[in-house]
Amino acid sequence: MPEGGSTGGPLEGVRVVDLTTVVVGPICTRSLADQGAEVIKVEAPEGDILRRLASGCRTPSMSGKFINFNRNKRGITLDIKRPEGLAALRRLIAGADVFVSNVRPAGLRRAGLDAASLAALNPRLIHCGITAFGSGGRYAGRPAYDPIIQSLSGVAGTFHRAVGEPRFVPMVMTDHVTGLVAAQAIGFALYRREKTGIGEAIEVPMFEVAASFVASEHLGAASFDPPEGPTGDARLLSPDYRPLPTSDGYITVHPNSDAQAHAFFEAIGRPELKADPRFATAIARTENAADYFRVRVAALAQRSTAAWLEIFAARDVPAARYNTIDDLLEDPHLQDVGFWQAEDHPTEGRLRHARTAVTFGGGMRAATLPAPRQGMQTDEILAELGYSPAEIAALRETGAAR
Amino acid sequence: MPEGGSTGGPLEGVRVVDLTTVVVGPICTRSLADQGAEVIKVEAPEGDILRRLASGCRTPSMSGKFINFNRNKRGITLDIKRPEGLAALRRLIAGADVFVSNVRPAGLRRAGLDAASLAALNPRLIHCGITAFGSGGRYAGRPAYDPIIQSLSGVAGTFHRAVGEPRFVPMVMTDHVTGLVAAQAIGFALYRREKTGIGEAIEVPMFEVAASFVASEHLGAASFDPPEGPTGDARLLSPDYRPLPTSDGYITVHPNSDAQAHAFFEAIGRPELKADPRFATAIARTENAADYFRVRVAALAQRSTAAWLEIFAARDVPAARYNTIDDLLEDPHLQDVGFWQAEDHPTEGRLRHARTAVTFGGGMRAATLPAPRQGMQTDEILAELGYSPAEIAALRETGAAR
Repeated sequence: MPEGGSTGGPLEGVRVVDLTTVVVGPICTRSLADQGAEVIKVEAPEGDILRRLASGCRTPSMSGKFINFNRNKRGITLDIKRPEGLAALRRLIAGADVFVSNVRPAGLRRAGLDAASLAALNPRLIHCGITAFGSGGRYAGRPAYDPIIQSLSGVAGTFHRAVGEPRFVPMVMTDHVTGLVAAQAIGFALYRREKTGIGEAIEVPMFEVAASFVASEHLGAASFDPPEGPTGDARLLSPDYRPLPTSDGYITVHPNSDAQAHAFFEAIGRPELKADPRFATAIARTENAADYFRVRVAALAQRSTAAWLEIFAARDVPAARYNTIDDLLEDPHLQDVGFWQAEDHPTEGRLRHARTAVTFGGGMRAATLPAPRQGMQTDEILAELGYSPAEIAALRETGAAR
Repeated sequence: MPEGGSTGGPLEGVRVVDLTTVVVGPICTRSLADQGAEVIKVEAPEGDILRRLASGCRTPSMSGKFINFNRNKRGITLDIKRPEGLAALRRLIAGADVFVSNVRPAGLRRAGLDAASLAALNPRLIHCGITAFGSGGRYAGRPAYDPIIQSLSGVAGTFHRAVGEPRFVPMVMTDHVTGLVAAQAIGFALYRREKTGIGEAIEVPMFEVAASFVASEHLGAASFDPPEGPTGDARLLSPDYRPLPTSDGYITVHPNSDAQAHAFFEAIGRPELKADPRFATAIARTENAADYFRVRVAALAQRSTAAWLEIFAARDVPAARYNTIDDLLEDPHLQDVGFWQAEDHPTEGRLRHARTAVTFGGGMRAATLPAPRQGMQTDEILAELGYSPAEIAALRETGAAR
């Protein structure tokens, strides 16, 4: 595997082979790439389905969503069902620090890409297998997508409690969160490898990650055995847990501490509620969450969003306006911090993307790479691996590389 | 700072001083603690508000939610408004690898706990400041809680598009995700410090993290400048994007690839839809997401959940039952993998918790520590810092330690 030059960022010099598709794997490897790792995205000839799954693109295989999850990566197309294609992938992995896949374990084993086989090839390799379900459980090996995991893990169940019917978060939330956790785990393993000098295998199961997320939030009184009460955090499960209507839009106000709650009651002209036993303490407000929300609903409808924001700001009551997805593009704070960045993509033209949210004082990745068109760097990467022009031509001839 | 003995896990030997409350900081440091770091939770005399914010506990300051977010940590109570309390905290930080706070930056500066001041004390320190809003933007320094960030970042906006009114995810999702990202960033910085020998400052702003999450999902056609169409991933923004009713409950079915979609149409007895131009390809199904959902709604109501699951399993169509929050406790796969673990807490009695979702082949944290009662290890930790019994008594006398 090549030296890719200096990227900057905490993961500078970390080489990642990325055999993932859709969201869970790509957000993992993008998190590594954004922080300086050199990521090579290996695609099968049919390509990552996310290239075509979302509408609104300039060329058919470069959806905006694909671009967003695959920036800062280079791309190679290999048909690993062909022995020469698989050999090229193994040569890539032999020189890598990290191999990430979201292929089902049986498929990895068939291709000799399981952790044990690859440890023999590269003992320093960190092998991160993102799966739908952890090994050892009866769902292991089943196919899954985000809504399957939202359905099983209790994410949809939180809405059932809040609004009376199960729903999904309208994002691929469990994919996205699991990918972030996988990148976290890879960082921890990279740290350990600096101490031990040897790699390891990590398993990151989406269902367990999502169930752990929900349990941390909503196991609540059932954390005790026997339970001390029902599951669920009542503050979050109220039907009124939402931005609330003002006279001209919406506002979110969240007086949490006693001081904030008391300031809020003053602000809405109901100082007598400071002494109301339903609202006097944090635990009382939790137990009377529905009543507390009703007080807010009644008050907030009386003034405009701007008027309330001014009133709450003066009293240090946490409050904010509500942004639609489109409003994000105009949010003044995001403008201040240069959140939206312009990019000239070599084939897709002028783009905008959200910059990395986290900043590292020790130095950040300097230059961004454009999300690759399929096979964009196939020849370049094969050449870096030591393939001669004639060998590359032969791989292309058989369709093993494209 | 003490050696805390060998924990096992990739972060064994990493010493973390945790000046955080509620969820965003505690899930960050729990992620570090679960993977072997030694985390010392420093609390003000009034304690982390999460101790009392959730109902259902055996003792008033040990809510289930607090316990879930604070396992594997030791606790010390210091009044850092008193000089001796602040001095003890600085002595802790002098021997630490990581300092995590979710205190507003102005408060950190006032106490001399900002990155520059602490780098002078400990040049190897990784200083992770979790903030509501990034520095340099006009919202910087404002107070915030999760719903404020859900309101501003477009998370609530996704529901507006899906169901006609903004709502929050009924979890402290942006806190939780930002904390996971903060732990990820700390892992990356620990890795870099192995190379450079010096620490650094990391800023993790909740708003920017959440806006990046939403943008990756829903910038869509507005990733292009000028936009190629509206923002939003239409597949996720359908009002029918939810577990769908069967004759006796709910089911989630998610045929994504062409093969899965075609198998699904066969399974529901509508093979003619395989050739329907609305559904023949992934991009067509995306563009006709609403119609595609209507087909599912009509079909699924005809049979029971169990009958459908058997039919879909036979055809390898991704499908799953729907679990309420309570169902999670009985899920058979989670039982198989030992997801729910029993714990005997020294003061709270028999508990259950979700085990760490990610597994590391190179070794995991061996023993879990109980979530601390407030100040549970105050004396022990002060003694490890070199305070004599008389000095500890003096600190307790003034209320600087409790």
